[in-house]
Amino acid sequence: MLEALKQSVFEANMALPKYGLVTFTWGNASAVDREAGLMVIKPSGVEYDELRPEDMVVLKLETGRQVEGALRPSSDTATHLELYRAFAGIGGVVHTHSRWATIYAQARHGIPALGTTHGDYYYGEIPCTRLMTAEEIDGEYEKETGAVIIETFQGRSPLDIPAVLVASHGPFAWGKDAHEAVHNAVVLEEVAFMAWHAIQMRPDLPPMQQELLDKHYLRKHGVHAYYGQG
Amino acid sequence: MLEALKQSVFEANMALPKYGLVTFTWGNASAVDREAGLMVIKPSGVEYDELRPEDMVVLKLETGRQVEGALRPSSDTATHLELYRAFAGIGGVVHTHSRWATIYAQARHGIPALGTTHGDYYYGEIPCTRLMTAEEIDGEYEKETGAVIIETFQGRSPLDIPAVLVASHGPFAWGKDAHEAVHNAVVLEEVAFMAWHAIQMRPDLPPMQQELLDKHYLRKHGVHAYYGQG
Amino acid sequence: MLEALKQSVFEANMALPKYGLVTFTWGNASAVDREAGLMVIKPSGVEYDELRPEDMVVLKLETGRQVEGALRPSSDTATHLELYRAFAGIGGVVHTHSRWATIYAQARHGIPALGTTHGDYYYGEIPCTRLMTAEEIDGEYEKETGAVIIETFQGRSPLDIPAVLVASHGPFAWGKDAHEAVHNAVVLEEVAFMAWHAIQMRPDLPPMQQELLDKHYLRKHGVHAYYGQG
Amino acid sequence: MLEALKQSVFEANMALPKYGLVTFTWGNASAVDREAGLMVIKPSGVEYDELRPEDMVVLKLETGRQVEGALRPSSDTATHLELYRAFAGIGGVVHTHSRWATIYAQARHGIPALGTTHGDYYYGEIPCTRLMTAEEIDGEYEKETGAVIIETFQGRSPLDIPAVLVASHGPFAWGKDAHEAVHNAVVLEEVAFMAWHAIQMRPDLPPMQQELLDKHYLRKHGVHAYYGQG
Repeated sequence: MLEALKQSVFEANMALPKYGLVTFTWGNASAVDREAGLMVIKPSGVEYDELRPEDMVVLKLETGRQVEGALRPSSDTATHLELYRAFAGIGGVVHTHSRWATIYAQARHGIPALGTTHGDYYYGEIPCTRLMTAEEIDGEYEKETGAVIIETFQGRSPLDIPAVLVASHGPFAWGKDAHEAVHNAVVLEEVAFMAWHAIQMRPDLPPMQQELLDKHYLRKHGVHAYYGQG
Repeated sequence: MLEALKQSVFEANMALPKYGLVTFTWGNASAVDREAGLMVIKPSGVEYDELRPEDMVVLKLETGRQVEGALRPSSDTATHLELYRAFAGIGGVVHTHSRWATIYAQARHGIPALGTTHGDYYYGEIPCTRLMTAEEIDGEYEKETGAVIIETFQGRSPLDIPAVLVASHGPFAWGKDAHEAVHNAVVLEEVAFMAWHAIQMRPDLPPMQQELLDKHYLRKHGVHAYYGQG
Repeated sequence: MLEALKQSVFEANMALPKYGLVTFTWGNASAVDREAGLMVIKPSGVEYDELRPEDMVVLKLETGRQVEGALRPSSDTATHLELYRAFAGIGGVVHTHSRWATIYAQARHGIPALGTTHGDYYYGEIPCTRLMTAEEIDGEYEKETGAVIIETFQGRSPLDIPAVLVASHGPFAWGKDAHEAVHNAVVLEEVAFMAWHAIQMRPDLPPMQQELLDKHYLRKHGVHAYYGQG
Repeated sequence: MLEALKQSVFEANMALPKYGLVTFTWGNASAVDREAGLMVIKPSGVEYDELRPEDMVVLKLETGRQVEGALRPSSDTATHLELYRAFAGIGGVVHTHSRWATIYAQARHGIPALGTTHGDYYYGEIPCTRLMTAEEIDGEYEKETGAVIIETFQGRSPLDIPAVLVASHGPFAWGKDAHEAVHNAVVLEEVAFMAWHAIQMRPDLPPMQQELLDKHYLRKHGVHAYYGQG
């Protein structure tokens, strides 16, 4: 079932090493079919060069029960499920340990909006979660990882800021489908790289002007967008 | 019309990902035919691997009216037009969000001339514009971006310093044609990279000696040049 | 003899330039057959593109005597032998001058555990040795290099922290076989890169929470592991 | 004449972009035939992908007079000639604007010996020249560049420290032939990269122990060397 979605999740996973976002098996992409109530995700710990579309694992969105696939799903499956349940508008999720976003996650610091590259995709700072408690870590850790992300987005729009840094861990990015989630994960890496170096050369650098952020985000997103072929 | 110019603009655009200056569709190159009064530019938001020479868009230099091409021109078109109108000697313009030049743009800082690599191509500091006002951003933003660049070059020669950093945004580079504009954009990235690291290790580093800057710039440019095959 | 082991040591050596861990001939991988009491290692100073499986050198683990191979073994052979003798559970060793691990070695500083990428492979800080004494350097230098590594692991488990930085020199990594040793050397480079940048942006950054380190290390290692296909 | 030497100089020049040491035409390699009293060098400003062995230019070592080749020699020819005249033991010279060595040159700072990677090739700090005077720059600039390098090596052995940083400019490296000069230029870039980062994380870092420098340099160089296949 869901052969087209499996194919697109497979392609999204294969795009992660292509864009230099993962080393070895450190990353996973998923997508959801909301009508069918099913999530498709990469299996756990399989080498990218051995991965095939039919290896993708299908689970019930509501219960997390595996309904198809011979392999175990990604160990981060419970986090993906939580995100789909809480963020109604998203259709794809990507998790990586990409270098620059992970540096910010390890430093437990959000990525401020410093320029139009950021503003073209993210409508404000990309936040970092709080540290998880010992109880959360020792409990249903992967599910709690999702919960702490959702908590971080209280008062933020996950559609306008389609990524997060999990403290001491790494980034999750999302989008309307798996392809867009990968795209946002690539942009995240670019803006993390540039923010790191801009702040290093000028530690007191304030965020970009709100007017410029509005201009760039809104010329690509929303009803008044005029970027691209319309 | 202008098939040769379209071909060269197409090639200049394709050179941007080749030199690692752009991610996804983040960049555009244009060129001008001053006799015909026409500018040729990349269409907006098209993937590089789908781009064809015949997709290039042709516009009137004076009015900005589109006279050929099925696609919309780059969203930065009005900035390119302003630069051609104000800088009489230039024939090609390139805009990217290349990493190192954009870091300087985000830090709102010019790139000082620190060595002969810089001096071989740029006759002094590569300046950064002032921040744009809310009125400029909310008004004809792309045209005003051109205006703030032109303002920055009051008292500077755009032919001797063929690039600028737009604050909180990224670089524009130019040259006698689109090919040279790309070339200058590559050099800009190199000198930004090296300046960043040299200043990081020695924050009080002064610019290079004026005599050395003169020597290197003038041995490659102007009537007494003796670099290359003459 | 040991043709399969020679092949795997050959492949491990060839993986070093593939993963960007070595320049020229700067690196060597070995493996041990504990039943036979023999070590297989790369010959000294041979270019990677000329290396063949049959060039691997075989030595007695106990005495270091060469028992097969027309070429001299790696100049670091005595260090490898010491590690196999002292660390009973390891089957492969890799030595490189990979950039980021070597930066830490040159700064004479261990790599703290700052995130889950580290914790998935290394159960705590990756230590740096003390400086060697003039006597150790002037004596049996390569053997003493092994001794100072072993001294560094007093009170540490080489199986849970499968790498070390030799001060003013570079890293050694190991694993259950040569393939895993290479794998750990790649991870070492990643975590060194990310630790360097995280600490640069936040010099007072403490190590990750012990609970999180436990969680990630133990979900991939030991009897309760649940990562991968089991 | 000198077809074999032209071929090797051609190959050395082609190795520069292969190892990532040059952008565009920014680099040149030469070699000398001391018996014939002739130097072979790359022509000025020719693209690497158009370069052919027969384009190499032959000049008299003593007078600098061009004796073969249709093209002008590299604009840095006079510097190469000075180095061959002063440093009797060298047979090849390479000049680049490679990023990390140039950063040190721009910061006007030598590269200290911080680890065995450095010590395997360079027997101590790689020095940076003083700034050139206005008279030197305005006079026979390229020849004076050679002179200031030679001055820097008063009291140093060019065979034991086969590279220099020209202040505000970039590196020259040399060796017994053009191939070894390229090799040393690659190592220079590696050690500059690692020194920059090690010192950034620990600004008070002293040079490596003299005993360790002796050990590594002398196990690869000189009569007691025991690295490689002997």
